[in-house]
Amino acid sequence: MNHVLTALAFASLVAAPSAALARKAPPARSQPAAAAPKTYFPPEPPPAPPQLHGIQYLYGSAEAAALTRQTWRILADFVDEQVASGTHKGVVLAPDSTLANPQFVPCGDKPPAIVLDVDETSILNLGAEYDDLLANRKTFDEDAWDRWEKGGAAYVAPTPGAKEALDRLRDHGVTVIFNSNRAAVNAAGAEAALNAAGLGSARHGETLFLNGDDSRGSMKDGRRQTIAARYCVLAMAGDQLVDFSDLFTTEPNGVAARRATVAYSGIADLWGAGWFVMPNPVYGSGLQGGPDDIFPKDKQWRDPGPPKPPASEAQTEIPAKKAK
Amino acid sequence: MNHVLTALAFASLVAAPSAALARKAPPARSQPAAAAPKTYFPPEPPPAPPQLHGIQYLYGSAEAAALTRQTWRILADFVDEQVASGTHKGVVLAPDSTLANPQFVPCGDKPPAIVLDVDETSILNLGAEYDDLLANRKTFDEDAWDRWEKGGAAYVAPTPGAKEALDRLRDHGVTVIFNSNRAAVNAAGAEAALNAAGLGSARHGETLFLNGDDSRGSMKDGRRQTIAARYCVLAMAGDQLVDFSDLFTTEPNGVAARRATVAYSGIADLWGAGWFVMPNPVYGSGLQGGPDDIFPKDKQWRDPGPPKPPASEAQTEIPAKKAK
Repeated sequence: MNHVLTALAFASLVAAPSAALARKAPPARSQPAAAAPKTYFPPEPPPAPPQLHGIQYLYGSAEAAALTRQTWRILADFVDEQVASGTHKGVVLAPDSTLANPQFVPCGDKPPAIVLDVDETSILNLGAEYDDLLANRKTFDEDAWDRWEKGGAAYVAPTPGAKEALDRLRDHGVTVIFNSNRAAVNAAGAEAALNAAGLGSARHGETLFLNGDDSRGSMKDGRRQTIAARYCVLAMAGDQLVDFSDLFTTEPNGVAARRATVAYSGIADLWGAGWFVMPNPVYGSGLQGGPDDIFPKDKQWRDPGPPKPPASEAQTEIPAKKAK
Repeated sequence: MNHVLTALAFASLVAAPSAALARKAPPARSQPAAAAPKTYFPPEPPPAPPQLHGIQYLYGSAEAAALTRQTWRILADFVDEQVASGTHKGVVLAPDSTLANPQFVPCGDKPPAIVLDVDETSILNLGAEYDDLLANRKTFDEDAWDRWEKGGAAYVAPTPGAKEALDRLRDHGVTVIFNSNRAAVNAAGAEAALNAAGLGSARHGETLFLNGDDSRGSMKDGRRQTIAARYCVLAMAGDQLVDFSDLFTTEPNGVAARRATVAYSGIADLWGAGWFVMPNPVYGSGLQGGPDDIFPKDKQWRDPGPPKPPASEAQTEIPAKKAK
């Protein structure tokens, strides 16, 4: 029975266009309809992705590719301008900083660098996401991910525009440093993945920092301080808030409260000007909540439906009681 | 039975964290588990969103809010710089242009303007998306959307950072023009929505162009030419490729081919420098395809699983045949 449920769920996900697809799309070129779900037991469970839209968008769409190119382009322009003018401004928060009153590690004469998250910022983990989808995983599988970190290098791609931006900045004397929560014990795999994507070379402890390099686990602030002690960090890029500061983890975690943190007066002006965000609707801390969490109460519209017929007309429509 | 299926589907969507959630997240703050689905007939079908991740990301996440702020920030900076320097470069493609060899409508002495898509670019249609979710719509409902265009103004919000950017540019003498595929017959509703979001004033035929203004239906190039005849368009913003040029609709529409168009040599450098993309993993032409379309064949990794025990050990594990 579960197989049938799964088949039904998958068929509806793949077949159903977005409810709002036609809203702004050009005249539809019809997609081949998915085969009708079978009602007998299929030979094996087909994959049942619970959230195909995020995956379709991030790994397949032209729009996400353009958006990612845009982000790399503006990051490179932003850094280039400072390198050319010689006016360096660091963007790593100082240890005594708060989000309401951000202070930055001063640059002094340190050489210019940028600090980048790896997964779904610098590279797309195509192989791991394909495997998750085909294996129909509903929860994170640590062991599978560990094998991916060790052996997946040939199955990644750079995010669109990453290679061009990093090549340009390296040409201009900027050191590219990666700060990832991949495991330090799998450093060779992380180096191999970045090299395979054309974004290397990355060397653990020099231009690659990982979970396990210090005692703070997945918290990245310690590693950011280590990097900022050696370099003037002109830009950071990531797909998660924690790619910019661990302070975000100490803020309230409800949907609305979490969303509000990025508009704090001290922080709002950093997006696109030192802190650069890559799209990721596939996983991460931002994907939480149901309709009542996501949509504010005063925005919860319900379609009233077609206008009701006038009362007199409605009267005539009441079916007469049948004589027995 | 359908109700039970729906309940199961919804419970699994809301309860299941992303398979990769823990990959880069800070130590998890646990969400309350969803109640176990009931196996008897529930009183009414609960909503069963087929694609909650896209919705969680776009309307709820801090990351999408930061990414959208970033895009408005760089658009405003890009335009401001040209206004300040007096070097105007139009970004509307000329009628004889191709994507491979883009040519732009010249600016002459025309006054500076920007051209913006409306839905999920300038405003978030919170009410309509909430209603889609609660009504569990699987396909686009033209009638419901028409009622939304007419009466939804109080239930929208500006995309994060839109108001600040538009206020700044208007202060600097830039005209803000909207080019939307909302229906011309519902112009009053579109004006009301933009005004309610704090992005007005928008006036139909002057600073607001809609589907029905000319004979080309949802194709926006004709309206773009009308606007570019009056203004020097320094930047365009949208969440769909057709918000920049109808030429994208004449390109091959497969996932990989469509994604490749944004990297055409003549086009690749426009993203973030004249053409500005907003995130939308909820609806649109980019959301198509299954695993084999989205993931290139050479990136389709499968987890090999834990290492197999050595042959000798495996031998000993074969259960001896039971004596009868």
